[in-house]
Amino acid sequence: MIKVGIVGGTGYTGVELLRLLAQHPQVELAAITSRGEAGTRVADMFPSLRGRVDLAFSDPKDAPLASCDVVFFATPNGIAMQQARSLLDRGVRVIDLAADFRIKDVPTWEQWYGMSHAAPELAAEAVYGLPEVNRDAIRKARLVANPGCYPTAVQLGFLPLMEARCVDLGNLIADCKSGVSGAGRKAETHILFAEASDNFKAYGVAGHRHLPEIRQGLGLRAGVPVGLTFVPHLTPLIRGIHATLYARITREEDFQSLFERRYANEPFVDVLPPKSHPETRSVRASNICRIALHRPQGGDILVVLSVIDNLVKGAAGQAIHNMNLMFDLDECTALAQVPVLP
Amino acid sequence: MIKVGIVGGTGYTGVELLRLLAQHPQVELAAITSRGEAGTRVADMFPSLRGRVDLAFSDPKDAPLASCDVVFFATPNGIAMQQARSLLDRGVRVIDLAADFRIKDVPTWEQWYGMSHAAPELAAEAVYGLPEVNRDAIRKARLVANPGCYPTAVQLGFLPLMEARCVDLGNLIADCKSGVSGAGRKAETHILFAEASDNFKAYGVAGHRHLPEIRQGLGLRAGVPVGLTFVPHLTPLIRGIHATLYARITREEDFQSLFERRYANEPFVDVLPPKSHPETRSVRASNICRIALHRPQGGDILVVLSVIDNLVKGAAGQAIHNMNLMFDLDECTALAQVPVLP
Amino acid sequence: MIKVGIVGGTGYTGVELLRLLAQHPQVELAAITSRGEAGTRVADMFPSLRGRVDLAFSDPKDAPLASCDVVFFATPNGIAMQQARSLLDRGVRVIDLAADFRIKDVPTWEQWYGMSHAAPELAAEAVYGLPEVNRDAIRKARLVANPGCYPTAVQLGFLPLMEARCVDLGNLIADCKSGVSGAGRKAETHILFAEASDNFKAYGVAGHRHLPEIRQGLGLRAGVPVGLTFVPHLTPLIRGIHATLYARITREEDFQSLFERRYANEPFVDVLPPKSHPETRSVRASNICRIALHRPQGGDILVVLSVIDNLVKGAAGQAIHNMNLMFDLDECTALAQVPVLP
Amino acid sequence: MIKVGIVGGTGYTGVELLRLLAQHPQVELAAITSRGEAGTRVADMFPSLRGRVDLAFSDPKDAPLASCDVVFFATPNGIAMQQARSLLDRGVRVIDLAADFRIKDVPTWEQWYGMSHAAPELAAEAVYGLPEVNRDAIRKARLVANPGCYPTAVQLGFLPLMEARCVDLGNLIADCKSGVSGAGRKAETHILFAEASDNFKAYGVAGHRHLPEIRQGLGLRAGVPVGLTFVPHLTPLIRGIHATLYARITREEDFQSLFERRYANEPFVDVLPPKSHPETRSVRASNICRIALHRPQGGDILVVLSVIDNLVKGAAGQAIHNMNLMFDLDECTALAQVPVLP
Repeated sequence: MIKVGIVGGTGYTGVELLRLLAQHPQVELAAITSRGEAGTRVADMFPSLRGRVDLAFSDPKDAPLASCDVVFFATPNGIAMQQARSLLDRGVRVIDLAADFRIKDVPTWEQWYGMSHAAPELAAEAVYGLPEVNRDAIRKARLVANPGCYPTAVQLGFLPLMEARCVDLGNLIADCKSGVSGAGRKAETHILFAEASDNFKAYGVAGHRHLPEIRQGLGLRAGVPVGLTFVPHLTPLIRGIHATLYARITREEDFQSLFERRYANEPFVDVLPPKSHPETRSVRASNICRIALHRPQGGDILVVLSVIDNLVKGAAGQAIHNMNLMFDLDECTALAQVPVLP
Repeated sequence: MIKVGIVGGTGYTGVELLRLLAQHPQVELAAITSRGEAGTRVADMFPSLRGRVDLAFSDPKDAPLASCDVVFFATPNGIAMQQARSLLDRGVRVIDLAADFRIKDVPTWEQWYGMSHAAPELAAEAVYGLPEVNRDAIRKARLVANPGCYPTAVQLGFLPLMEARCVDLGNLIADCKSGVSGAGRKAETHILFAEASDNFKAYGVAGHRHLPEIRQGLGLRAGVPVGLTFVPHLTPLIRGIHATLYARITREEDFQSLFERRYANEPFVDVLPPKSHPETRSVRASNICRIALHRPQGGDILVVLSVIDNLVKGAAGQAIHNMNLMFDLDECTALAQVPVLP
Repeated sequence: MIKVGIVGGTGYTGVELLRLLAQHPQVELAAITSRGEAGTRVADMFPSLRGRVDLAFSDPKDAPLASCDVVFFATPNGIAMQQARSLLDRGVRVIDLAADFRIKDVPTWEQWYGMSHAAPELAAEAVYGLPEVNRDAIRKARLVANPGCYPTAVQLGFLPLMEARCVDLGNLIADCKSGVSGAGRKAETHILFAEASDNFKAYGVAGHRHLPEIRQGLGLRAGVPVGLTFVPHLTPLIRGIHATLYARITREEDFQSLFERRYANEPFVDVLPPKSHPETRSVRASNICRIALHRPQGGDILVVLSVIDNLVKGAAGQAIHNMNLMFDLDECTALAQVPVLP
Repeated sequence: MIKVGIVGGTGYTGVELLRLLAQHPQVELAAITSRGEAGTRVADMFPSLRGRVDLAFSDPKDAPLASCDVVFFATPNGIAMQQARSLLDRGVRVIDLAADFRIKDVPTWEQWYGMSHAAPELAAEAVYGLPEVNRDAIRKARLVANPGCYPTAVQLGFLPLMEARCVDLGNLIADCKSGVSGAGRKAETHILFAEASDNFKAYGVAGHRHLPEIRQGLGLRAGVPVGLTFVPHLTPLIRGIHATLYARITREEDFQSLFERRYANEPFVDVLPPKSHPETRSVRASNICRIALHRPQGGDILVVLSVIDNLVKGAAGQAIHNMNLMFDLDECTALAQVPVLP
């Protein structure tokens, strides 16, 4: 059994990790921490876990994290970079679901995240945990930077085009829509039900922190820096990201076939038949990314539609996928749920 | 492997059966019928099932139902009563998720459902598939009448009080709220998104078909006919039923303890601590019923709160629970999903 | 022109007052205060008011409230009772949308609201602003206690029965469902979109602050204390309250006619035809209460369905109705909007 | 008083016309037709109109349309083109809220709408009812083609750029999100609450009927044909369209100032401060279009955000705006409602 610790378990990413790990046959949940809720039983805060998770939240300083095999950080940005070193030094592997280790260029990270990086050498070591790109490196990694939700949906939608370099790499557009759980379980006014329900808006158009992460990932695959306009929108969904991607074709390809080949062996990427319209609910509560291609009016704009559940493939599910890879398990373990529709 | 057929697979009950059965290790899905969609691949209609269900819908007359071990009817009322006999005669067991066999008194059924009953002798034979009441009979049954969604939530909430006969049996009130999927996947105006969203209303106050079913179930447990006012409401939820039940106490009891004892060995009924407020999402996509008791201001009105997912414990999940019992499987098989929250 | 001040304008009650007052031809908006947002233009916080409200929030201590004709308190409980006296002394009339002056029995108020009352003599003087009951007194009032949202829906639904004393007054049940805006524009976790959407739950079953207010109002009309079980529920609506009321008939009446007569001259109460099912959206954004009566199966339980928009008839609209009465205006001024459906 | 008739009053556009016209001081509602609902009182179908609209639906063949001053067609496509001629011949002015007269090039119309045009000469005569472009022509028009909802939001967002010809006209992108009421009040499965709630998807990517309408409008303003990729999405909103528009800048301008000048005298277009994020709810139930400009990272992509209420500015409100212009009324009459927020 793999002994698992979770740091910061009161957010949506934390409870989603618990939902999935509670169904993982090779995992023993050893500790889950929360400074604010220490002593509270997890199932008292999240009654959906009654009878499934017997732990109480523990104070971070008391938690037996060092004796775990792997620790997930489901914390705000800036925490994992302070605590990962000591765990790694004791042989604990670390998967950070926040952004601390996602960006290789530390000054870029510091600019977008507005703080000094506490462990630049770990940012260098960390493997970016997108299995469709870095499967082998993840298997060997001590420290995995779990991708952001938007970056997962956008990168998987653009990846085959980057690798084939058959579109205008300087003018990519990613118009993305996210469910409100993507904003976290924070008591903030703008994500109240009475604010976010029956309402739709863009946000962060001037610059969202996922932009440099996406640019880095796409640029690495393309082999050159890419130009990207990224506009996120807040959508009255609980879960779900829908990325609508636009690229100008510069070289003809059988794009459908290109995508199908690229993802043929990927258990969690499903390329739909041409001209499909993937729905976010078709992946709800599952680790799947569904992708469809369109070429409106046969013109030179390729439209890629990519949907994920932001809490699963965009966070906790992908993190467990990474854990499965790191511990040589069947990579689909605990991730085979059929999406919940309706 | 148990060979399973589904008659009428294009509704929400049908797709939910598929979601759950696709994860059932002892089930082989042999046929799923739909007159209107014969030839369509199931996963083309419900992309959430891509890679998980390979069947196409078949025309009912061509489907190999007679060679199945069990057939689920996920059809409108009035279908199963016409087709069950010939299947039973060939040794196929039948679970009807519609209302054809739920009510023992055939004239009552005919009055509420507005049609003649085609198989009164089967209505007499059928076992009412509420495992918390009829577990042993279900094990031996050829024909199971799967309970309605409201009747499941209301009966489980009232049961211990009926059996203990400690409340005024003549004046029970069940104020129930259902998600819109309870109305089925039918193209009807009043359940359009733009009608049912951000809107709340009662319906069927004059008399809803689940009333005689609930009355029958409660009366059987109480040993006398009961008086019940039942008011259902349409709520802007996809899934979920919340029953708020009111009973006047006629004999003091430790009600919390009464409920806990009654359901101590029930895998799918969870009695919450006193004064809890169960949320529908705490059972979303799972087969659990959660119940909490209140006694406002210490008066003589007992308030019972009971929540289920109408498509799982209120339909497909309970049907599979019944199947598990009928085939001597672990009764929790394929029903152990952790609820999806948020 | 009536000079109007608003204390505490950043909540939903405040912005709704602004929406309605901006369309009131005899009102001049003189000041709106907010400690936290002093200096912010109202329309920057609520862009729906761009071009309609030119004021900025002012600090309470600087606001020209004493020169207003009337001041609305759209504040948390406990504020108006501290500030009303000095305004009244300077001839300013006061309408409190919070609960400070709703309950005549000060010890009861103090028990339910958990604080000492700062102005018991004003609680005695205040007129309870339910125009359907107190129209004449409101006309002459200096200080109006605007009713709560649940109390408005429940009292209007029960009133004719209280006055006729034709039901069992000791066993009333009010099963109420409220939209999330009823919880206010507060940054609290349980009313986040990702918590409250696609979810339904009861709350405050042990005792909600609106209980003594409703009991007081019903008792006054009945002439005797009443027994009431009140269960509120949080519903995924932005706006709307649906009260489902149950009373045991003790004397036969033509109940439909009783209600129609009682409300024949009330501009904001609409008694629907028998057996109707009023929808919350049928009053959305309007000051109307719609009521329908049912007598299921012809038994002795009368079911009354009553719907309002909690922010209009349940708060800001009723407050303006009261203002219109206090200043001898046509009582429907600024309240004649057609409900927004869909 | 202007005598108004409405053909086809049972859809969302019809009921919204009624909501607004019921508050129009210079309008007398003379007739509203519906083949299917002839004889039903309008307020029985739409209780929100109780006490406000006293008409019953009449059969089209009996309705006194010819004695009206103006007739609105709130019908499916293909109806107005058959009936407008005879009304116009009798001096009745016509405003079509469907698409029959929106496209000047009849073969293009026939291709996209899949039917022969019954009145090509009227398509030639009709004035496209976008007041911000055609105000003077609308004033004199006998026949107005009311714009589509997407075309209104997209054209208003792109207009100043077309007129200034300062962006790449061959590569415009309009990523649009619509509330579900935009699909009409039709009993279709895909717009059921349980399908469309908590779900997001693109649709019609291969080609939506609003594409040629938008292209025509933009091309006329630019003076040259434009290249446009238009992707609509179905969003779990009742009302609202959010258009996210992308254009590559080809000539520097003060874009904010360009937009502000263009719309300075437009009562229903509100240009927000730079970098704003307009919310659909900020225009809910009102006739306003709010627009904001962004230039992410100072690059050469201009992002325009444009929001409307699809049923008001995108349909009924704009139609009444056109009527006001046609009858020399203050153009804001009956359209001055403050948006409903929250």
